[in-house]
Amino acid sequence: MYEVELKVRAQHEPVRERLAELDADPKGMVEQIDTYYDHPVRDFAETDESFRIRRETDEDEETARVTYKGPLVEEASKTREEWETGVDDGETMAEILDELGFSPAATVEKIRERFEWKGYTVTLDNVVGLGEYVEVETESEAIEPAREGAIELLQELGLDPEEQIRTSYLGLLLAEDD
Amino acid sequence: MYEVELKVRAQHEPVRERLAELDADPKGMVEQIDTYYDHPVRDFAETDESFRIRRETDEDEETARVTYKGPLVEEASKTREEWETGVDDGETMAEILDELGFSPAATVEKIRERFEWKGYTVTLDNVVGLGEYVEVETESEAIEPAREGAIELLQELGLDPEEQIRTSYLGLLLAEDD
Repeated sequence: MYEVELKVRAQHEPVRERLAELDADPKGMVEQIDTYYDHPVRDFAETDESFRIRRETDEDEETARVTYKGPLVEEASKTREEWETGVDDGETMAEILDELGFSPAATVEKIRERFEWKGYTVTLDNVVGLGEYVEVETESEAIEPAREGAIELLQELGLDPEEQIRTSYLGLLLAEDD
Repeated sequence: MYEVELKVRAQHEPVRERLAELDADPKGMVEQIDTYYDHPVRDFAETDESFRIRRETDEDEETARVTYKGPLVEEASKTREEWETGVDDGETMAEILDELGFSPAATVEKIRERFEWKGYTVTLDNVVGLGEYVEVETESEAIEPAREGAIELLQELGLDPEEQIRTSYLGLLLAEDD
């Protein structure tokens, strides 16, 4: 199974209108606060890894999960090893990480709104300090048709696939700091 | 709030009979498998800390949680800082810890049976490689009366408070290895 993802910087309002015209299925809005951690001795920037706690809040509940992403295993498809599990209490997990010598390195905070359309997920992210982004995403056994479909959908939404951004929000925020 | 705990090595069968005579409330039986981890660079034996994943299985479900215990902050009452939270998937958490450079150092595996009696918890532990233990435990604002009560209950169960063991199961198992 491949995950195909295309992200561009784009104002949300015209995209939201196009999604309504396409009759895309709104999946609600959440707030996500990701705290990325430094390892006690390893330099994650150098090893191309990341480790974070994500706290997600929707209308009525707050959930948390921890996610480890390993270095790229394949450059072309941007494939990484990824491990993720929910935790009952994000604050307690943060305390444990602190005790173990992990320190918060950066925070990515965003409002995320999701739509479903013919097997694709369209995500409208409003990222604190960065602005508005739109991501089109799908999973497929066949990478090329999935990528073609994602490109077509981006065009349907009035967006330019040539403007694809491959850098993560964390990477974009850290680049701003430089 | 203080936690008072008295643990002795004892055969379970006569204790179980006394618990029935006292009309103690049986709280069921679980299997607990604790995996203790070595820190990537810190020596927990030296810093008097511990970090583990506990996987607990009862009749119908498996749960997992991570627990960090800090060094003793007060010698007399054996008080430690402790942080614990449930995780959705213990195996995934183990994979994440592995990726972060933590390695499994020791496993403590036991069948634990609990009874409640007048504000006290009586725990019958059958620990793989160590044998049968009984623990009497309560929480209280007043440490001395709670301790007196725990001693009396141990005696009611036909056990000798003088035989109290202060070493953790992990400590006992590691001592056996020496």
